This record gives sequence, structure tokens and C-alpha cells, in this order.
Amino acid sequence: MQLPDMMTIAALRAAYAAGATPLAVIEEVIARRDALTDRAVFISETPAESLRAEAKRLAERGPEGLPLYGIPFAVKDNIDVAGLLTTAACPAFGTSPARDATTVARLRAAGAIVIGKTNLDQFATGLNGTRSPFGAPRCVFDADYVSGGSSSGSAVAVASGLCAFSLGSDTAGSGRVPAMFNNLVGLKPSPGLVPNTGCVPACRSVDVITVFAGTVDEAAEVRRLIEGLDPADPFSREAQPVALPARPRIGVLTAAEREFYGNAEVAAAYDAACARAEALGATLVPFDYAPFRKAAALLYDGPWVAERLAAVEDFLATNADDFEPTVRKIIEGAKGRSAVEAFRGRYRLNELRQQVAPTWEAVDMLLLPTSPTRATVAEMLADPIRRNSQFGLYTNFANLLGYAAIAVPAGFGASGLPVGVQLVGPAFSDEALVPFAGAMHAAAACGMGRDRTAPVPAPAEPRLPEGWCTLAVVGAHLSGMPLNRELTGPGGRCLGTARTAPGYRLYALAGTVPAKPGMVLDPAFAGPGLALELWALSPAAFGAFVAAIPAPLGVGKVTLDDGRQVTGFLCEGHALAGAEEITGFGGWRAYCAAKAG
Amino acid sequence: MQLPDMMTIAALRAAYAAGATPLAVIEEVIARRDALTDRAVFISETPAESLRAEAKRLAERGPEGLPLYGIPFAVKDNIDVAGLLTTAACPAFGTSPARDATTVARLRAAGAIVIGKTNLDQFATGLNGTRSPFGAPRCVFDADYVSGGSSSGSAVAVASGLCAFSLGSDTAGSGRVPAMFNNLVGLKPSPGLVPNTGCVPACRSVDVITVFAGTVDEAAEVRRLIEGLDPADPFSREAQPVALPARPRIGVLTAAEREFYGNAEVAAAYDAACARAEALGATLVPFDYAPFRKAAALLYDGPWVAERLAAVEDFLATNADDFEPTVRKIIEGAKGRSAVEAFRGRYRLNELRQQVAPTWEAVDMLLLPTSPTRATVAEMLADPIRRNSQFGLYTNFANLLGYAAIAVPAGFGASGLPVGVQLVGPAFSDEALVPFAGAMHAAAACGMGRDRTAPVPAPAEPRLPEGWCTLAVVGAHLSGMPLNRELTGPGGRCLGTARTAPGYRLYALAGTVPAKPGMVLDPAFAGPGLALELWALSPAAFGAFVAAIPAPLGVGKVTLDDGRQVTGFLCEGHALAGAEEITGFGGWRAYCAAKAG
Repeated sequence: MQLPDMMTIAALRAAYAAGATPLAVIEEVIARRDALTDRAVFISETPAESLRAEAKRLAERGPEGLPLYGIPFAVKDNIDVAGLLTTAACPAFGTSPARDATTVARLRAAGAIVIGKTNLDQFATGLNGTRSPFGAPRCVFDADYVSGGSSSGSAVAVASGLCAFSLGSDTAGSGRVPAMFNNLVGLKPSPGLVPNTGCVPACRSVDVITVFAGTVDEAAEVRRLIEGLDPADPFSREAQPVALPARPRIGVLTAAEREFYGNAEVAAAYDAACARAEALGATLVPFDYAPFRKAAALLYDGPWVAERLAAVEDFLATNADDFEPTVRKIIEGAKGRSAVEAFRGRYRLNELRQQVAPTWEAVDMLLLPTSPTRATVAEMLADPIRRNSQFGLYTNFANLLGYAAIAVPAGFGASGLPVGVQLVGPAFSDEALVPFAGAMHAAAACGMGRDRTAPVPAPAEPRLPEGWCTLAVVGAHLSGMPLNRELTGPGGRCLGTARTAPGYRLYALAGTVPAKPGMVLDPAFAGPGLALELWALSPAAFGAFVAAIPAPLGVGKVTLDDGRQVTGFLCEGHALAGAEEITGFGGWRAYCAAKAG
Repeated sequence: MQLPDMMTIAALRAAYAAGATPLAVIEEVIARRDALTDRAVFISETPAESLRAEAKRLAERGPEGLPLYGIPFAVKDNIDVAGLLTTAACPAFGTSPARDATTVARLRAAGAIVIGKTNLDQFATGLNGTRSPFGAPRCVFDADYVSGGSSSGSAVAVASGLCAFSLGSDTAGSGRVPAMFNNLVGLKPSPGLVPNTGCVPACRSVDVITVFAGTVDEAAEVRRLIEGLDPADPFSREAQPVALPARPRIGVLTAAEREFYGNAEVAAAYDAACARAEALGATLVPFDYAPFRKAAALLYDGPWVAERLAAVEDFLATNADDFEPTVRKIIEGAKGRSAVEAFRGRYRLNELRQQVAPTWEAVDMLLLPTSPTRATVAEMLADPIRRNSQFGLYTNFANLLGYAAIAVPAGFGASGLPVGVQLVGPAFSDEALVPFAGAMHAAAACGMGRDRTAPVPAPAEPRLPEGWCTLAVVGAHLSGMPLNRELTGPGGRCLGTARTAPGYRLYALAGTVPAKPGMVLDPAFAGPGLALELWALSPAAFGAFVAAIPAPLGVGKVTLDDGRQVTGFLCEGHALAGAEEITGFGGWRAYCAAKAG
């Protein structure tokens, strides 16, 4: 079985397309898992015989309708997988779940195969990966360094090439910090988008199940399969997708809010990432991080820590000595916190939400360091609370404020350790963040996981949000033309150029300001076809746009030279009386150029 | 000064239009206020001299740009009015606010005049109106009966004809229960729509400032003036208006969930209101109230009572004896509640939110009793907690779940006491509830306030939400035609019929299923004009509709016989080759009738 060191979904699909069987893939997974030197990655492993049996079942069934046919993945051990214990890294807490978590069930239904349950900071309380009786998984680039947490094992499993992706969870930053430390993509959905049913809560009102993968597109593909309403999760919500422009305004740290705890390497990599973002077409907008930082501080300093107590209160009462000491100290710190404090925390968070609102008028997304610094295992164990809280400086606010985020690799320092940055967008910008996050990863050219030279494919074409309307543009709305801002202003996205079927004629309309053409279909005509641009708009933006089109223009269906019918600009026939026919130019842009030249 | 007993905004505008001055109106207000026999209504009154001075200032300035020019209103004494104490019905708590509450400032900027601060259940803790050291305002129909609370004085002031409207507040039902007991409209906005800045909190995360008025349209007019984002209020939000159909599906109580605590009169009135709703075109849909009831119970039995403690904690520590005893008991009951309980309450509420979601798939709004029963002051004082909690059976859930509600008069029982019902809709359905609520009040024909015979004007034309798009419909989308559901399905609203300018020709298109006409403009033609219907759709619904129109139809601008231009159906000219011209019929409906006949 020949698979690249990074076992991406793409590599596996290529292998299956070339005739590989799920069993052959699974044997390779078993071999790699057995060869793994870091024995702290898994808390429990799917037995080899079970994996082989599942691979055979899949092969018998065949790949039809299974988007993740034979794709191996790992699951953080606070997320239920039927047949394996759920321990949350506390052996005495271990229970045998009756069924898969909703996310795991959806992935298995898509043909993916669970290879094991991964280690974590106990009860997902930590960002460093050392708070577990099962040991500390290590950074894949330097075993002296922490892997990051709490989703430590899930990150190391993917970064070590054991599986194509993994599930983590993220309350303070647990789905992002380990992505940075292991050169991975860490995709953190908007709270509520992906159901938490079957996940041991950390802070139940802000927990999010996340995806680690080698590329943004693969992480997003997994997210699309696990997202969607699950009424069994009280916080599960219907998505209300938000669009973002292709050339976003990106918020970046001001000098006053830059804090890397002395780590010049991460600071320099952040600056380089900002420069890459600008080179990719973004406008950098320094913004005031202070209110976000204050929101971040609420997660451990405010009443939310009581959610961690709520999750394990009965178990703590009987099994306090079974807790990892730092985790116990944190959770016990919530005892005695009052309901009044809890509500005041909510008031304070909402005050900060109002304070950050102007930032979101000025930017489309934020670009932040994932973690401002790193630490060795020894450093972390010597100063576990302070070092851990440094890691969360730029991550802790995101779930409290409902945002989506994608952490992407951003290159390596002279130390040989990786650096990461995150793009953070408003609630339900999950899909909208994907294209730019993918471009940022590709531009960083730092491979994925432990393979620094793995090719990072160019990002896939952006997916249009469901229901968006396509519009064929003929004249003054073309890119660079006077009315183009009527499309870009409300978030329209250019899908590229196209050409009409031969039956269309073009006229320069008399007396229009700015000058406009009119297009009409003459079915008997065999013309050159006319150059168009296709744009996509949300239904609301499209409706408002159409309502504002002045006579004699309107929209109808336009047939393209490939036979497709799209909604596009047409002109009332009566307005062509006396207008100059310019069909021979093949389009409005060519006509304008000829007239100007 | 001749004003009707009910001093509506309409009556005052008529008086001003007939030449009355603000001073004359204010003298009448002063006279009525002085003559009021219920001395428990006001906690403080704007001095007569101040009122006269303000009336003179207004007269000098003139009415231009002041939508509430010279309209007197009262303000619940937990809402700040600069120049008057804010006591929340606790004299020792009284403070002199530096500025008006945001709502009051907006109303004053619109030309309205504050006549005084009204009594309430202390700290807005109660639904009955007896928990105040300033006495118990009485039901305007029977002084043995409570007025309802907590916004007791605000309701009685309007129902007694002292002013045109008043501000209340509503946490559990305080803006609705007193509306029922005094035959008024009680409009409760969606939480977050109207800013609470300058309002003494009860439960800050769910408090809402409300409007009492004689009619739904007048209450809605006031709401439109006080709504809108105020960043100084942590819970203030941008509205995301929701549309509802003109013939709504209305959820009504099942037999199992009917509870009137033995009050057959209110029960019968509720049934009559359901019948009226059906007669007005609604479809009645019995729904399971149980999860709403469970949510309602959380407000006092769950951790939210800790918000009441959070609001007055320091004051309670030093001034416990200054509290009304029942209010003190309730608020002190929150002591010792833990942050864990607070978060668990939120989990439980969100569980119930998931449980009620299917109801909102089946209904557009709920029709519920406002209060299931009434009580005399003596009964209330004898059993203050239990009697009070009965009043909130059908109101307590609305703010916790984020809903909008309008309580409307529903007639009188044999007792001579009024009955009220509420329409409850999803978050930000505030405007969408108005037309049906207004129709329900008009159909009840029970006057307003203490005047049972006051004429209730027919509801105003529904306001289209901002940005809605108008579409002129020519053929198969007309009311009753095969494709009309493509307009009604996504919430389209028929605005009525219209006729084109004379230049339009109509053709029966060959081979269309269902049969469709095509309309084109021929500027040289002097035809009869063609019959149209105008429909309104949200931009998103309009955009999706336009995107689905098949060739050879499309939309452009259509000129009406009154000169207006509206977006409407047009047909590509090439498609008329061989089609039958049917312009002479004057419209598609007439043509179809002739063909069928």
C-alpha cells in the first residue's frame, strides 16, 4: 500500500480510484498506528480485527453514496463512539456509550472509519496537552514541546499521518492551539452549527466540536457532513450563512495589543502572515483587540468555569482524587460562585459584544496568531496555569462571542517549530472563511502535519451559499464598469466570464447615463455570441438589485453557448428603435474599448 | 377643550388639526389628572407649571417633524425621566436620574409630553399591582379588583383617559396582564428591540419596555419610535423583521392545557376570541402548550430570580426593611443560588426551545388568554404568591423565549370585567403581528379602556417591512390562478389591483403550461390598459421568485395608469411571433373567464 506520509482524504481517494481496497488502507493505518512512537496519542484504539471487519463490510457495500468511503479518522475521547469507552482522560469517569455522538454517527454513515479515541487535557480543561493521566502527546516536530490541547491526541494523530482527519473540541481554543503546534488546519465551527450530542461538556453553552485536517478544504468537507440541526442538543441551531467578500477587509492587531510573551519567532510569523494576506488581496485594518481580550478573560476568570463544575459535579463529589490536580483545582474554583455572578458575567459579555460591534462594521474577518507562544512540557508542568492561559490569549473569546474560526499553518521559525494563525469571522461565516483560509495555507507553503514539504493544493472554488442567485451581466455592471459596485457592494461574487448562444443581439441604447447596452434574443439570428460575466448574489441582494433596475432593462432567462440558462439582463424590444446595433463587437467591453481607442 | 373620554393619539391629532393648542390639551390633562379618584396611579406627577411650559415651547416650535406633537404619555416609575425621581416603587431606592431613558428621550424628541411616573409592583416584581407602598391602583371597571401589574399605574392612566399611551415594562407579563384588566392594548416588543437603557432591571436578560394604548395601531406607532439599537444596552439588538401571512395559522390551547383556575368567564371569552380569529381568516391549530408552560415556570422557579437579586443586591444588603414584604421574600429567595444552577437553567430553557420548535413549523402565531383569571385586591393580599403566579401562566414564557406579543381586549363578561387575549409571535415578528392583532381588537367591539363603547377604528393597512419589493403580476400568478401559491408560499402580500398605462399589449403565449400571457410595451399604442395585481415580497423571496421565472418571461419596469413605475412581468418580444393578441380583454382574468364561458 503506497500512501503519502500525510494520509489526506485526497490521497486516499486517489488510492481508491486506483483500485486500493478499504482493507489495504486499513492495514496501512494499523501498521502506522502500531509504529507510532508517541504512545500518549490514543486512550483507546479500535481493535485491528474490528477495523479489518469494517473495511470488509465497506468494500462489500461499495462506495456509492459514501462521501468518506474508507476514510480513517480519530475521535477525541470526550466524544462518544459506540464500542469504545468515553473517558474524557479520567479513567474512573469512563463509561461505555450506548450510541455514537451525532457527529460520529454522521461520519460513519458517510463511510468513514474510527481508528481510536485520542488523548486530551482531562475534561477538555486546558490548552496544552499535559493534563492527562494517559501522558502528554508531544509536538510532532520536537518531543520536548507540548502538542497543545486540549485536543492533543487528535492533532498528533493527523499530523503523524495515522488518519485523514480527526474530531476535536474547542471551548477556549482546544481545536486551534494544537493545530498550530502540529502544522495542521484546525477548523472551529460557529457554536451551534455542529451538534454536541454525545460530547462530554466542558462549558456546555460554548463548546464546539472541531475538525483537524491537512487542508482547509478537507476540514470544511468534514464540517459540512457533521453540521446541521440536532434537536437533542439544546444549543444546536439552524445555520444562517453569512457571505464575505473575496477580497476581505481583515482586522489585524495594533501595536498596543501585540503580545507574544517574548516569542519573537511567532511575532515575526504573524507579521509575515499579515503580509501574505495583503498579497492575496485583503485590506489590512488595525482594530482594537482590547474588548475581545476582555471577553476572552471571562472564560476562566468569569463564571463560565461553573459550567465545567456543572458537567462533573456529582462525579467530583465522589471522585475528587481521580482528577488531574490542575484540572481539579480549576473546576473546584467554581464552587461557591453564585447565580448572581453567572448573570453578571452574561451582562459583561453582552457589554463587550456591543463594544466589538464597530469592529465588525470595519472588517470582514480577523487575522490573529493562533497561540502567541509555545512551551516545553517541562515549562508547562512547572507553571501550568500561567503558561496555559498564555496559549489562549487570542482564542478564548471566539466561542463566547459566537464566532467561526479556522486556524491554518503559517510557516516555521528558525527553531524548526511551526507557527499558526487564525481567521475569525462572525457567526455562521464558516463557509465564507474557507476560501481565504485555504489561500493563506497554500501561500504559506509549509506543507501539512509533520511533512513540511507536502504539496498544499490550491483552494477549491468557493462554494456559494445555498440559494444564491446567478446573474448574467452584459453592460455597465461588468467588472471595472461604472455600475459594478452595485454588485460588489452587497457581497456579490464574480463567477467568471461566459458567452451567450448565437441568437443574441446587442444595441447601444440612446441617452443612457452611464451608457448602457440592451440585449435581446432573435432566435433566427446566428451571431457571434456576446461576452457576459456571471455574478452570484444572495437572494435578498439579488431581489433588491432587480427591483432597482430602470426601464427599458430587466431580467429574464439568457441561454449560454454551452446550453445553460441563467438569469440575465435583457432589454424591452421597443427601446431598440433607433439604437445602434453593436453585436459585431461581441460584447459591451469590446465596444467600449473600440469607442475609446 | 373637547376630547373624548379615551384620549387617543387620533383624537388628539384631530383636535390639533382643528386648531387646538398643546396648552389647551395639557390643561385638559391636568384637569383629568386632578380629578382622578384612584390616587395610587402616580408615584410622581410632572408639575402642572412644567407641563404648561413644555406645551408652550412645543407650540412655539410647531408640529413639523414631530410625529407625537403634543401627545401626553405616562411612564412607569422604573424608567428614568430627567427631572422626576425613579423609585421603582421603593421610596428609599429613589434617585434623580441625570437623563431620560433612551425610550423616553426618543418620545420627547418626537414631541410627546411626560405627565408623570406611574405606580408598579415594587422592582417590577409581580403581575398584580398590589405590591407597592404607594397603594394599589384599581381595575378601572371595579375598584375591588386589582389593576394587574407590575405596570399597574401605566395601564390605569391610559384606561382612565389621562393620556394617550404609556410605557410599561414586561419581564413575566407586566406589560400585558394589566392591559387585560383595563381593556387596553399591551404591546410587548421582542426582547432587545426596544432599548432598556435607563430602566431599573428586574431580570435584565429578559426585561422589555412595553406600550399601553387604546389601539394596536397606536401602540405600534409608539413602538416604531422607541425601537432601534442602543449600544448602551448590552441586550439591545438590530431587528431582523419576520413576515407572517395575512391569513395566519394560529396555535390555540388544547383541552389538556386549558387552565382558567375556575374562571368560566375568561374561558368562554377565550373560546369566543378563537372563533373571531377563525372568522377573520385564521386557521386554528391546537398545539402543545406543555413545553411553553415549563419554560414559563423557569422565570420564578428557576435561576432567573437571581437577576432580580443582581439588580438590587447592594441596596438589599443595607435596606432590606424598605422592601415590600412579598417582593423581599421573592428576591431574597435568590440568595444562595449557585452559578451551576444558573447555567443549568439556561440548558433547560434551551432544551425547551428545541421542544417548541416543531410548534413554530405548524403555526405562525399563538393565541392565548392574557391572564387565565382575575382577583380582587383582598384575594390577592390574602394569597399573594399563588394568585400572582396564576396570572402569569400564559405570559411568563414569552421573554425567556425571545418572542413578540400583543395583548388585545377581547370583550366583557357578565361580571362587567374585561377579558383579554394575546397574540404571540416569533422574535422580531413585532410588526407582522400588528394587522391581525388590530383586527382582533376591532372584531371584539368592546371599546378601549374604561369606555366600552369607544369606536375602535379598522386596522391600518399593514406596513410592509422595510426593503420589501413590489411586483406587478399579469397572468398565472394572479389571486386564484394556478401559480399564485408561488407568491403566497414565501409570505407575499397582495397590495391590491392596478392597471397599466395605455401602451401595453397582452398576448396568450402558445404552448405554456399552465397557460400564461406575455405583456409588452408598445409606446405608440393607446390601448385600454391591462388589469394587474400588485404583490409585495421580501427581497429574498422576491429574488428567489425572479430567479425561477422561465423564458420567455422576465421582469422589468411597468408603468401604471397613475404614472407610477413598478417592477412587473414582461415578455421577450420574440416569443410573441404567432401568439394571439388578447389586449382587448383588458387583462388575463377577463380573457380566461371569456374562454371558459
